[in-house]
Amino acid sequence: MKFSPLVQELINAFKCLPGVGAKSAQRMAFHLLERNRIGGTKLAESLAKAMENIGHCRQCRTFTEQEVCDICLSPKRQARGQLCIVETPADVIAIEQTGEYQGLYFILMGHLSPLDGIGPDDLGLDILEKQLGQGQFSEVILATNPTVEGEATAHFIAELANKYQVNISRIAHGVPVGGELEYVDGNTLSHALSGRKHYSF
Amino acid sequence: MKFSPLVQELINAFKCLPGVGAKSAQRMAFHLLERNRIGGTKLAESLAKAMENIGHCRQCRTFTEQEVCDICLSPKRQARGQLCIVETPADVIAIEQTGEYQGLYFILMGHLSPLDGIGPDDLGLDILEKQLGQGQFSEVILATNPTVEGEATAHFIAELANKYQVNISRIAHGVPVGGELEYVDGNTLSHALSGRKHYSF
Repeated sequence: MKFSPLVQELINAFKCLPGVGAKSAQRMAFHLLERNRIGGTKLAESLAKAMENIGHCRQCRTFTEQEVCDICLSPKRQARGQLCIVETPADVIAIEQTGEYQGLYFILMGHLSPLDGIGPDDLGLDILEKQLGQGQFSEVILATNPTVEGEATAHFIAELANKYQVNISRIAHGVPVGGELEYVDGNTLSHALSGRKHYSF
Repeated sequence: MKFSPLVQELINAFKCLPGVGAKSAQRMAFHLLERNRIGGTKLAESLAKAMENIGHCRQCRTFTEQEVCDICLSPKRQARGQLCIVETPADVIAIEQTGEYQGLYFILMGHLSPLDGIGPDDLGLDILEKQLGQGQFSEVILATNPTVEGEATAHFIAELANKYQVNISRIAHGVPVGGELEYVDGNTLSHALSGRKHYSF
């Protein structure tokens, strides 16, 4: 004996979410059915709307329902002439929360990964190259993740950007603030040492 | 700067799921937008259909889109005259998977919890009493969870069922199969001892 068809269909549908297996899917379905039908209906509506209407920004490739996103449209940001290249839209939010950066972004939506068949065109590097060619940027900041794939991607983009008249920089690697040297891995520590700065009084 | 309105709405909507906070909601939204739009659309459809059409079985209170569920409709199960009382529809599936039980179920959809304002009527005990009054059951098996609330609920239902001509039983408490005595808690162990059975050759 199984659940009734519609309940089973709902449980199966929940399994498409990342990190959700049979048990979690069941728990989610029962939670909504039992305690939050309004929330469930709202989720269904948001999901349907989002799946249909959200596309990529024509300029920076982030998720948006507009043709060009609000960040790309800002004249203040355009005037800065800075372009920060990140892997995901979530990285944009993380950088925005620091309040340190006021320029534009380019979102790769992943990193180079030949084994998974993800090449330069899948990361929109043709769009990026066109933008660099227009000469609106004076600096390109490579803010991909400090992983093997992220470093390779940064290296690839640096070589590509080198053909144009732009400063190219990579975000600093080192000991995270609040961390303890004892527990920092050797690779990070050697980056922190080689990247040391002159002490300024 | 935030995500675009529709993306933010989707992330907020995901937070209604149990165990899903801001970060997981973001991950789910991005996963569907990036890699599984078809799955997302299907989830939206299943969810909308489920929230609108799934109600409770008139007899056993489980989730179903029919008026009376398949288990309750089965003449074979009705003929058994057994009624197993459980807390949730998931418990029904767990018991069904053992293949040990062939009777009908009654699902409380929770347990007595005066602090949360959950009383006998919220558990459908009025419906249960009416069914017991019709005299179709010879045995009532109390299969609520072996927690404080589950035990209290079982006790309450036992007293209620005692007014009618039925055998009342409670599922056995004891050492779980495959468990080790050393790691079993004292309460369970004392249940296992007091509930010991004569060894049959």
